Amino acid sequence: MKNNCLKYGMVGGGPGAFIGDVHRRAIRLDNTARLVAGSFSQDYDKTLSIGRDLGLDEDRLYDNFQEMAKQEASRDDGIDFVSITTPNNTHYPIAKSFLEQGINVLCDKPVTTTLAEAKELKELADRTDTLFGVSYTFSGYPMVKEARRLIKEGELGELRMIMGEYPDEWLAAPADNKQAAWRTNPDQAGISTCIADIGSHIENTVSYMTGCEISRLSANLDIFVEGRKLDDNGGVMIKYNNGVSGMYWASQIAIGNENGLKLRIFGSKGSLEWHHKNPNLLKFTKLNEAPRMLSRGHEYLGDEAQENSRIPAGHPEGFFEAFANIYSNFAAAVQAKKEKDSIDPSDFDYPKLEEGLRGVKFIEKCVESSKNDSKWIDFK
Amino acid sequence: MKNNCLKYGMVGGGPGAFIGDVHRRAIRLDNTARLVAGSFSQDYDKTLSIGRDLGLDEDRLYDNFQEMAKQEASRDDGIDFVSITTPNNTHYPIAKSFLEQGINVLCDKPVTTTLAEAKELKELADRTDTLFGVSYTFSGYPMVKEARRLIKEGELGELRMIMGEYPDEWLAAPADNKQAAWRTNPDQAGISTCIADIGSHIENTVSYMTGCEISRLSANLDIFVEGRKLDDNGGVMIKYNNGVSGMYWASQIAIGNENGLKLRIFGSKGSLEWHHKNPNLLKFTKLNEAPRMLSRGHEYLGDEAQENSRIPAGHPEGFFEAFANIYSNFAAAVQAKKEKDSIDPSDFDYPKLEEGLRGVKFIEKCVESSKNDSKWIDFK
Amino acid sequence: MKNNCLKYGMVGGGPGAFIGDVHRRAIRLDNTARLVAGSFSQDYDKTLSIGRDLGLDEDRLYDNFQEMAKQEASRDDGIDFVSITTPNNTHYPIAKSFLEQGINVLCDKPVTTTLAEAKELKELADRTDTLFGVSYTFSGYPMVKEARRLIKEGELGELRMIMGEYPDEWLAAPADNKQAAWRTNPDQAGISTCIADIGSHIENTVSYMTGCEISRLSANLDIFVEGRKLDDNGGVMIKYNNGVSGMYWASQIAIGNENGLKLRIFGSKGSLEWHHKNPNLLKFTKLNEAPRMLSRGHEYLGDEAQENSRIPAGHPEGFFEAFANIYSNFAAAVQAKKEKDSIDPSDFDYPKLEEGLRGVKFIEKCVESSKNDSKWIDFK
Amino acid sequence: MKNNCLKYGMVGGGPGAFIGDVHRRAIRLDNTARLVAGSFSQDYDKTLSIGRDLGLDEDRLYDNFQEMAKQEASRDDGIDFVSITTPNNTHYPIAKSFLEQGINVLCDKPVTTTLAEAKELKELADRTDTLFGVSYTFSGYPMVKEARRLIKEGELGELRMIMGEYPDEWLAAPADNKQAAWRTNPDQAGISTCIADIGSHIENTVSYMTGCEISRLSANLDIFVEGRKLDDNGGVMIKYNNGVSGMYWASQIAIGNENGLKLRIFGSKGSLEWHHKNPNLLKFTKLNEAPRMLSRGHEYLGDEAQENSRIPAGHPEGFFEAFANIYSNFAAAVQAKKEKDSIDPSDFDYPKLEEGLRGVKFIEKCVESSKNDSKWIDFK
Repeated sequence: MKNNCLKYGMVGGGPGAFIGDVHRRAIRLDNTARLVAGSFSQDYDKTLSIGRDLGLDEDRLYDNFQEMAKQEASRDDGIDFVSITTPNNTHYPIAKSFLEQGINVLCDKPVTTTLAEAKELKELADRTDTLFGVSYTFSGYPMVKEARRLIKEGELGELRMIMGEYPDEWLAAPADNKQAAWRTNPDQAGISTCIADIGSHIENTVSYMTGCEISRLSANLDIFVEGRKLDDNGGVMIKYNNGVSGMYWASQIAIGNENGLKLRIFGSKGSLEWHHKNPNLLKFTKLNEAPRMLSRGHEYLGDEAQENSRIPAGHPEGFFEAFANIYSNFAAAVQAKKEKDSIDPSDFDYPKLEEGLRGVKFIEKCVESSKNDSKWIDFK
Repeated sequence: MKNNCLKYGMVGGGPGAFIGDVHRRAIRLDNTARLVAGSFSQDYDKTLSIGRDLGLDEDRLYDNFQEMAKQEASRDDGIDFVSITTPNNTHYPIAKSFLEQGINVLCDKPVTTTLAEAKELKELADRTDTLFGVSYTFSGYPMVKEARRLIKEGELGELRMIMGEYPDEWLAAPADNKQAAWRTNPDQAGISTCIADIGSHIENTVSYMTGCEISRLSANLDIFVEGRKLDDNGGVMIKYNNGVSGMYWASQIAIGNENGLKLRIFGSKGSLEWHHKNPNLLKFTKLNEAPRMLSRGHEYLGDEAQENSRIPAGHPEGFFEAFANIYSNFAAAVQAKKEKDSIDPSDFDYPKLEEGLRGVKFIEKCVESSKNDSKWIDFK
Repeated sequence: MKNNCLKYGMVGGGPGAFIGDVHRRAIRLDNTARLVAGSFSQDYDKTLSIGRDLGLDEDRLYDNFQEMAKQEASRDDGIDFVSITTPNNTHYPIAKSFLEQGINVLCDKPVTTTLAEAKELKELADRTDTLFGVSYTFSGYPMVKEARRLIKEGELGELRMIMGEYPDEWLAAPADNKQAAWRTNPDQAGISTCIADIGSHIENTVSYMTGCEISRLSANLDIFVEGRKLDDNGGVMIKYNNGVSGMYWASQIAIGNENGLKLRIFGSKGSLEWHHKNPNLLKFTKLNEAPRMLSRGHEYLGDEAQENSRIPAGHPEGFFEAFANIYSNFAAAVQAKKEKDSIDPSDFDYPKLEEGLRGVKFIEKCVESSKNDSKWIDFK
Repeated sequence: MKNNCLKYGMVGGGPGAFIGDVHRRAIRLDNTARLVAGSFSQDYDKTLSIGRDLGLDEDRLYDNFQEMAKQEASRDDGIDFVSITTPNNTHYPIAKSFLEQGINVLCDKPVTTTLAEAKELKELADRTDTLFGVSYTFSGYPMVKEARRLIKEGELGELRMIMGEYPDEWLAAPADNKQAAWRTNPDQAGISTCIADIGSHIENTVSYMTGCEISRLSANLDIFVEGRKLDDNGGVMIKYNNGVSGMYWASQIAIGNENGLKLRIFGSKGSLEWHHKNPNLLKFTKLNEAPRMLSRGHEYLGDEAQENSRIPAGHPEGFFEAFANIYSNFAAAVQAKKEKDSIDPSDFDYPKLEEGLRGVKFIEKCVESSKNDSKWIDFK
């Protein structure tokens, strides 16, 4: 509930964009930072119009991101971080511009469209000692954090099997809205639509929850809607390095499903099930006991879930709150870095560039396997 | 997404308060108005501390609400409305102070602790031509609005039966946190805890959805936890003026339930079921057909649901968004009133003082019936 | 799995009848008894036709129940009990005929259409030392038995609130099938349709689960479908003799609901929720703990649930199995009575005539209250 | 409801056996056939004891299946079919004995432990013109039949993706009851536990619903519990011959799950979801419409679902009824064959030997793929 002493800018989030607005609302929800600069659109008039609506000073509405990076870096009251909410293919040059100016970055996923670019960003961020967060939303949900805690504390025993799915229906038929257009266009989306857009959320959230590392995978990506160039459905079989097995399914043609991320983790002593449809619940079953429905906001939960929660049990929190948690934790790191000589980013619970990089690798490996007759390939 | 040209102040919402913070977050979520003034606590030091955290100028942090009303009314840049988020018994004097200064009010429910006070406020608001909203949260949910639309359009035929319930568990055992303390204290809460706090939400949401007017009721209020002075559980049987029957149940001792408002409306041609647990869904069944699960964010919904929604289907919206909708619609009325000579408040979809007044009457009638051996009494 | 040494006869269950066939199947499922005699219809040709299909000897297919009672009583290999599955108004004379011959009876509910008749049957059964079971199906579900056990063992602490409902949709519009015809006809159904047919199930199952005795009630019965003479919807508010409060709702106009009996029992230390829709589950919540979903077939359940169960967890048991449990437990009593000089019926877990009698009283009291402006009346 | 003119015998189903008893109860539920002969156990004393309990004549209780087949074939009143409910490895010799005597067979799945044996049985059944059913239970559920009908009638458009899963928990820890013992013993169970026991149900039910034929698959089978010799978890990726993709997951270590068969079928125009947990429901979603929850017993369903249903909507039918449907449809074929010169088995809706054979092949292919580093192999 403290004052938003941090200042941020945004690249992307112009009219018709979905996710930029989500970022801004999520930040406001917690008063995490104050929006003071932006280059919201490639069309400067749109940037001006949105910027004014948002109450920004005109001199901090920029024609392009390069100028914005330069100018903000040179100001005494420059932004503490930039949010990048543009189509996938532009993440790399934009992030690069800001990192080069020493400005912290929070970027949408997938962080780049190629692994090479992601690695370059990583090197650059390390060199410039900047913080880099990636908005893998689902790790922001309190009950996902509770799942992570229970697994860490050994409540599931040795892990055995991981089931992850993200069925959605929004591309079941040919679509031509702005969102669908760039996500299905290889020039903007990169080598994948479905795995990149939502399969990546399975990969990240599983990794966050369990810590399991993929050692091999076999993927079958489909294009079901005629005329499409990139995958709209995909299945992946996985072996993790600790003997755990897994299956992921992501689909944008799954009629009757809506952003239905669901994770089920099985161990020798218990299991967990989390479903985005009821994100405030977590099903926890111990061997030979009846399943328990853990619910956000209760004192029986661990600190992580409690601290990333705002209102009493039963009052549903949702997508914005998860997003807001990502930002709050990222902003805490930015703030700490401003105040101290050095911080350990791993003390702060937000998705880091390493995860973004691994996510891009996951997409590449899935596409590679699928193109090679779905053969099993190593993930190293 | 427009700039928050409106300015508001808050009375209440100090440290340890739950709902004041909810109001502020909800307003920020939509950038609906800018908080510029406050009297957050009876302890001025706390007001100062919170006010600073929220970035307010010190000269607009007030020692008491009377002063705040007077000062803000006299400023050129005074607040456009005040949010009142204090315990029930103080709503009346606070609202009165602001109304007398011609300042619009958005007040928590129940709007007063006696019907006489509520009537006085109504008269005053009419006289001073001020807008008065009441934060009955649940009417802000998009799928509640969809239910209202379907009923209005006759999709249920003639209404027959209404089932409303609000089970919760938070007072199942003696509790002594700040929230529980004032809500169970007759001096602060008035004549009822359970019916006033949550039963009132059933009454309002049913009325909003269906337009049905209560003609008679019989109530049985219980005090189950020893030492408590006010009801912690209550059942009400209802006859509406159009031949519809109803049953309401509100409980704060319903272990295993969390703010579980659930409404079921039955007519001659169809039925609707809405549950706060899954607020983005609405079950709609037509006679002789299979139930359909309507979901927020889809094009098959009416304008009201669509316009009070922010993100695609499947990304859960929750409590804050419902609250934000109340504020957005109230603020739209405030803005229109600033711009035009006169407006018709009924063009704007927010809970009005008439509803607040009726809500207080509902509480009084329930208590009266229960005290008289649960006899049936008229609701006029 | 033992041989069905018991022999039974049936009155009712002719063509187009629903429940007679259910009785026969349920008995066969467990090999509980062998059907050897019947008077299935008032039309003897139909009795002959059905009897042949069922493999019965023709000399045990009777033109009327009086003859059947007399003949079967006089045979050495006469029936051990009779199942009465006819419309409500005929239960009394039929049961009387068999009791007078000393033949045990299992009769559908409501056991008679007037309390006076029910009392007469009770006196007669006592005098003739015959066993009399009533097919209140829902007490046969294993998880209902588990609920009863948990409450008996004090897991819920002191009981506080009971919510019972039985919404159904099958009479939402005018209907003229055979089932609907007699159930809505006062000459055959008695003084009530909805409360008698399904409200009575709430009353019985609540009583079975909790042991609570009603001390006062207020009922509002509605007739929503034009031209109907008896109630098709009804609400009841209840006070039990131990300070517990309750609300029952039964409806046959609740579009979108199908035989949806649901019971929720709240105590000072915990709560239980059972829903006919998922009869193999029982939600059990202890104060300050997460709800647990108990499931049929698990070793963590009590003996009653386990012994009234046939197959492993996850393989759904349903309505027939519940019915079969009623019969198995009744038959066990009949068998024991054949073998021993005397038995204590309370050692056997089936619904007895006392419960049938109380059920009829419940119907009468609801109708009486409703006819008197829903006033509260004593239940003694 | 007609007399059970058909007579059957059983091999297996002795004390401690689970499934033999299920077969007998399911047959009795519908009065489908009369049990007249049996060789229930390898221990003749047990056969005698059970046979007597079941009311069988002693001269039809056999010491071994060979003798039973011979004797029953030679009797004028010999059995019309035999039910084989023994461990997997004995299906082949037993079925062979009865087929050679021209006696119809209904056998548990998997029908044999090797494909070669299954082919031999097929050839033998063809040669002796006997009927051969396989008890793939899930195709007996009315709502599975409704799904099949909707798909056949094109309601889903062109099929795209099939998700099948069967999670269960019963082998999550080392187990040594009779059921677990033989199912995890390669000598009795064959080459697989999990895929053979429950994965086979996914394969069969998907095939029944959709008609899709597998063209390639890649399987990863796991042994998670130490000391086990056969798989207790397995994932399969599948390509069907019509361009459809699929993923199956079967697990016996999935703590918190109980026989949780779930099928989701996606097409270009709609989708279906069926879950064994709520077998009376079928979720049906058309493109751009809200999901509908179809429910057993309603007139909006097709004939197949209606005819394989006994009681009104809302009264749950379950596992026994599904089993009973398999038997009723099989018995109808047996009866027709008795009455007519020749019948077309495809007119009768029960799982046939072709399906049993394909099921064995599925098991073999999964094991083969898994043993070869999960490589993709053809299914021809």
